[in-house]
Amino acid sequence: MTILSTRLTRVLNVRYPIVSAPMAFAAGGALAAAVSRAGGLGLIGGGYGDLRWLNEQFDAADDERIGVGFITWSLQRSASLLTDVLKRHPAAVMLSFGDPRPFVEAIRKAGALLICQCQNMDHLREALDVHADVIVAQGAEAGGHGGSRGTFTLVPEAADFIAAHSPETLLIAAGGIADGRGLAAALMLGADGVLVGTRLWASKEALVKEPHRAAILASDGDGTLRTRIPDIVRQLPWPDGFTARIRRNTFTARWHGREVELERDIAVEGPRYRLAFEEGDPENTAVWFGEAAGLIHAIEPAATIIERMVNEAAVRLQRHALSHPKH
Amino acid sequence: MTILSTRLTRVLNVRYPIVSAPMAFAAGGALAAAVSRAGGLGLIGGGYGDLRWLNEQFDAADDERIGVGFITWSLQRSASLLTDVLKRHPAAVMLSFGDPRPFVEAIRKAGALLICQCQNMDHLREALDVHADVIVAQGAEAGGHGGSRGTFTLVPEAADFIAAHSPETLLIAAGGIADGRGLAAALMLGADGVLVGTRLWASKEALVKEPHRAAILASDGDGTLRTRIPDIVRQLPWPDGFTARIRRNTFTARWHGREVELERDIAVEGPRYRLAFEEGDPENTAVWFGEAAGLIHAIEPAATIIERMVNEAAVRLQRHALSHPKH
Repeated sequence: MTILSTRLTRVLNVRYPIVSAPMAFAAGGALAAAVSRAGGLGLIGGGYGDLRWLNEQFDAADDERIGVGFITWSLQRSASLLTDVLKRHPAAVMLSFGDPRPFVEAIRKAGALLICQCQNMDHLREALDVHADVIVAQGAEAGGHGGSRGTFTLVPEAADFIAAHSPETLLIAAGGIADGRGLAAALMLGADGVLVGTRLWASKEALVKEPHRAAILASDGDGTLRTRIPDIVRQLPWPDGFTARIRRNTFTARWHGREVELERDIAVEGPRYRLAFEEGDPENTAVWFGEAAGLIHAIEPAATIIERMVNEAAVRLQRHALSHPKH
Repeated sequence: MTILSTRLTRVLNVRYPIVSAPMAFAAGGALAAAVSRAGGLGLIGGGYGDLRWLNEQFDAADDERIGVGFITWSLQRSASLLTDVLKRHPAAVMLSFGDPRPFVEAIRKAGALLICQCQNMDHLREALDVHADVIVAQGAEAGGHGGSRGTFTLVPEAADFIAAHSPETLLIAAGGIADGRGLAAALMLGADGVLVGTRLWASKEALVKEPHRAAILASDGDGTLRTRIPDIVRQLPWPDGFTARIRRNTFTARWHGREVELERDIAVEGPRYRLAFEEGDPENTAVWFGEAAGLIHAIEPAATIIERMVNEAAVRLQRHALSHPKH
């Protein structure tokens, strides 16, 4: 078995420094459990706070040790959701996209690790202020919601800031990490591990409809863009500064850059969008993957993805060291 | 002396797999020569094609072995420029931002290596079609002109495509690489070396005015954005798909998002911008650096920057290998 231990594997008590992204709707209990069984830490996607769905997903995880992630500004709209979810004893709770302060105490009291996802240096300072155990530095390559900084600069800059201000805090890189090259590169940039979204969205266990799976296999990394249109059409009040990276398709060709018209036509377009999503239509709804699409060529079990990622990273790290003897 | 050899060091006949970006106006002969003397390959920035300036910069390089880079669409406007510059016997010619085909034959005949910079997969296919010796995959983290793909996904996707279609072609990563962590990470992602812009823009040898140097030292990586306004105000016909990453300042706060008004007011704003640039004003003109600003804390000689980058990369590669014994 490949050994790839870091500070993160020790703190999370896992074999590999890999956490699955809590992707809304797609990251259910089956995916989270599969990731944890494979040696990482799986997170259920809390999404916009449907407690019944969340309980079903915790049930589906079959008592595997997993965590959960929330959209922080959305969690704020639902007074009891966090309390109810903490009753399921998640090993970790990840907060993204908003002020973490209202939720920290409850998470601590429940004995869960606190993971805060950051898209820029202001977010990082907020996360250190609440003494997050783990910081996720998420680059704009990521699928779904995110910011504008790139993974390649945000991770080392976050690593430097953490080293100077809170050296015990762990750092995870996110955004564009889909194989062992990405894992090895993230470690070189100063991360203690990685958060994997798009690559696991394209897994057997993810709750993704078949036509959407076909779409990621057909796409290269140029086939996505960042836009506000899925939030406008769903009437979700996402704060400024966040956009969604989704597949370029009929929906984005029609509405990206025409946000005002989309808001005006919401009475027609809202229901039309929801129906297309329910039907698995890959053209008239958002399809939620990131730039890593160009690195993905098969829908596979999460365990296969994680094993290959770890093996490939270990081989790369070893090979480069051998060809570059120390001075 | 640290050894860090790759396929790129052999083909370029250099000690380290590091090439300096041919930054318009900033990358003159002194910087290019300093980079080459330090073990990399320095490139003079061909910019918008001022032959007198280019000849002065080749003179300033003092017969050091260097190359030159051009803005391809701009080079097309000047029939004799390439011919005249090739008389200076550059070791390599880099073409970025446009169709390379009209220039390939002359570059080959002059015995220079052909480097083509790409921002997406279409550009990569064009570069392989003309049999570039070296491909630069440039992520949007980069300062100055570029595209929208992130370094973290574009580099491995380009590596896979090259491996499948033209395995002898070399690959350089660009965009956000400012230290040994970035160099080591780029090698892990599948690159044979790196192109360094912003970090060398902040060198003693770069042709950058003092207030602009002070601005990069004061900035973190959040302090830049991608915009078209410097091209509008200079009336430069940049093709669609390219934007400039520059510092957030008074100029960007005033005009980014107000491109139509800037075009309308060009008779006043054009001269105002040029005067501010000549005066070294860091607020009312574009200041050309990328997201790597957050990793830069001193203006140093290029040789110091390159030595540290190589040493840090070698230590990182070695350390990770030792802590992750092979399975």
